[in-house]
Amino acid sequence: MQQIYINQLAEHEGEEATLKGWLYNLRSSGKLLFPQLRDGTGVVQCVVVKKDVSPEIWESLKSLGQESSLIVRGRVRADSRAPGGYEVDVTDAKVLQATEGYPITPKEHGTEFLMDHRHLWLRSRRQHAVIKVRHTVVRAVRDFLDDEGFTLCDAPVLTPAACEGTTTLFEVDYFDDEKAYLTQSGQLYNEATAAAFGKVYCFGPTFRAEKSKTRRHLTEFWMVEPEMAFATLDDVMDLSERFLSNIAARVLDERAEELKVLERDTAKLESIVPPFPRLQYDEAVKILQEGFERGEVETRFEWGGDLGAPDETYLSGRYDRPLMVHRYPAAVKAFYMKRDPERDDLALGVDVLAPEGYGEVIGGGERATSLEFLEEQIKAHELPAEAFEWYLDLRRYGSQPHAGFGMGIERCTAWMCGIEHVRETIPFPRMLNRLRP
Amino acid sequence: MQQIYINQLAEHEGEEATLKGWLYNLRSSGKLLFPQLRDGTGVVQCVVVKKDVSPEIWESLKSLGQESSLIVRGRVRADSRAPGGYEVDVTDAKVLQATEGYPITPKEHGTEFLMDHRHLWLRSRRQHAVIKVRHTVVRAVRDFLDDEGFTLCDAPVLTPAACEGTTTLFEVDYFDDEKAYLTQSGQLYNEATAAAFGKVYCFGPTFRAEKSKTRRHLTEFWMVEPEMAFATLDDVMDLSERFLSNIAARVLDERAEELKVLERDTAKLESIVPPFPRLQYDEAVKILQEGFERGEVETRFEWGGDLGAPDETYLSGRYDRPLMVHRYPAAVKAFYMKRDPERDDLALGVDVLAPEGYGEVIGGGERATSLEFLEEQIKAHELPAEAFEWYLDLRRYGSQPHAGFGMGIERCTAWMCGIEHVRETIPFPRMLNRLRP
Repeated sequence: MQQIYINQLAEHEGEEATLKGWLYNLRSSGKLLFPQLRDGTGVVQCVVVKKDVSPEIWESLKSLGQESSLIVRGRVRADSRAPGGYEVDVTDAKVLQATEGYPITPKEHGTEFLMDHRHLWLRSRRQHAVIKVRHTVVRAVRDFLDDEGFTLCDAPVLTPAACEGTTTLFEVDYFDDEKAYLTQSGQLYNEATAAAFGKVYCFGPTFRAEKSKTRRHLTEFWMVEPEMAFATLDDVMDLSERFLSNIAARVLDERAEELKVLERDTAKLESIVPPFPRLQYDEAVKILQEGFERGEVETRFEWGGDLGAPDETYLSGRYDRPLMVHRYPAAVKAFYMKRDPERDDLALGVDVLAPEGYGEVIGGGERATSLEFLEEQIKAHELPAEAFEWYLDLRRYGSQPHAGFGMGIERCTAWMCGIEHVRETIPFPRMLNRLRP
Repeated sequence: MQQIYINQLAEHEGEEATLKGWLYNLRSSGKLLFPQLRDGTGVVQCVVVKKDVSPEIWESLKSLGQESSLIVRGRVRADSRAPGGYEVDVTDAKVLQATEGYPITPKEHGTEFLMDHRHLWLRSRRQHAVIKVRHTVVRAVRDFLDDEGFTLCDAPVLTPAACEGTTTLFEVDYFDDEKAYLTQSGQLYNEATAAAFGKVYCFGPTFRAEKSKTRRHLTEFWMVEPEMAFATLDDVMDLSERFLSNIAARVLDERAEELKVLERDTAKLESIVPPFPRLQYDEAVKILQEGFERGEVETRFEWGGDLGAPDETYLSGRYDRPLMVHRYPAAVKAFYMKRDPERDDLALGVDVLAPEGYGEVIGGGERATSLEFLEEQIKAHELPAEAFEWYLDLRRYGSQPHAGFGMGIERCTAWMCGIEHVRETIPFPRMLNRLRP
């Protein structure tokens, strides 16, 4: 019998259909059973009338355990009171495995317990909704970039050198005692492919061996990084605006059900539309200092530092949409950033800060084009010059202004979902104390 | 001046337009210069007439080196003799960087030299074409699965245990002396997410620390792995057929130009349409043995072994489309494969062999559902039982028939392109002796 899915019930109203899935919940009332079936696309309430099924079927269902696997056959009936608008009047059923003692029950469980059972926890309605939103975020990202003429150029995970610093790298044994490192960013590789394809992106897992245990950090997370040849800081800000507003629109459009499950205030997503406010770092500092004077910011922010999480939250809290802070002190930004021609102490970088305290979702900017400047920077940062020879080739052969950014998928997903911790936004999170399951 | 791209010239016929790119080639003829401009989307011939431009522009262009970066302004003119159908009559030009001594010249270079200059080699027409095909393969894969209702559930790269064996794993220093391993497959994680979402796929980089130096092997390659709950071996074969024929159709449709550059015999791709021949392993062995009798196969193949590259080539050479060989001896397949209920010595697995000697592009099958069977297998394979406890939970709670497959993107791309070595099908290949650039 051809399986249909719960999200296709509307197309089969009045028909006999076969559903395959797992028991989500079971209520009974005398000669009636109400098993709720889950099949990965939704949950539907089924109705079993004792006299309409064989005694064997009734027996097999009447005390079936949560997450038992079963096949149900029945007539699809519209019911405006039912959660998905449909119910199924069961005519036949077959239990594939009667499950007992499913560990995750409707009662409250601790986070560690749930994370240890992540392989099962994903079946829960809320976790299911988050991963569905993540799916849509990823698809929106790829569709947007593909449709704008970007070419996918995946950057390698195994790299010989660090892109930014070496203290937060995972080390790998390559062959013959050679060491490799897990990538933190495809940035440098993107600059090579942008010179070959014009507009490119890489999109893969990246790694940070940070010993930080915050709600925003994973040791393994997915990052999309677009890069454009012949582009400037302004182009990056324009792209960021269109990029983020497109993601929010797709999530609103395709994940209405999931946002409801997550009790997401969708007005927050609806306001993610261009133009985004643009604030120069200097202005941001002034606002933070004024906030301190008024007692709204705990410590006085001094010009020259990078923004901390409370600073980001204070600044972005003033707007209903992402805030773009640009032209940071060069000293706090990566060595390859282009300097502001009008102020050599500033880097042409931008951080896009999400509202609601979600912090930096995008970091990017314009890259330095001068060979001499980069050689100096590599020396000043005490980076191994030999490892960057290939990168410097990009300034020897056809150097041009180019710019791009990076966005972490999980942080963006947490923001879209309105959930607190990024650990729920990836199927199997990796953190300081978590490498399993 | 707003930049337009070479692949948009048709929309700007007769207009003045600004192009930004790199000098691909330069011919001159008296008072005429013919710089070919490359911008990542194509190559166009420009025409510079000495009397129509300033002396400074003429001087800056007349002996400009390959891969110099420049901005060209001119009128777009249709010319049926021109490769892309258009030429640009230059009215203005600005050289951003005059490049000298670009390492990759039209003369022949050795492979090692080109691989050492991969960051520049990607600008060459043939490499550019291959990566464009890869882009389309990836997009076709994702669109196909998304449109069929699969949910993206990325599997972790950092894993505590091996999926299949431990000899070919890259080891990573995680925190506090804990060891992690780079994933070889998202298979086991897929089985968990399939029970949560019904139909899922993971699609990311995977790693094999194999000391083999063949044209088919990379140490880091991208793999897509769909998995379906309530599915069987037949469902996997049906899905494989639709999946591969969809990829070929998309490549034919979207990459006609690139296939021309690669001199690909497109008839080979046009024949990738369902139904694909299905051959049971037993029959394959008979064909190989008959081939040996006739002197067409070098060594006699004995029942029980896994197919080697020459065997695959011989078998698949008999068909113009992919060949599906199914029901292999259980002993040569992974421990988690379901046994054929009619023949316990056979595993319900399938390998899809590409024509033209490209070998196995898809490997998959039905997974074992029985807790007891898997416990025995884990013991028999001397795998650490504790590491598989979470995986066994999937058989404790709602076990159901499920099936899926894996396809390596680079091998598929090599096949689509008709090129010999997978090293050209990923922007920055990683191999036994190659971790740079």
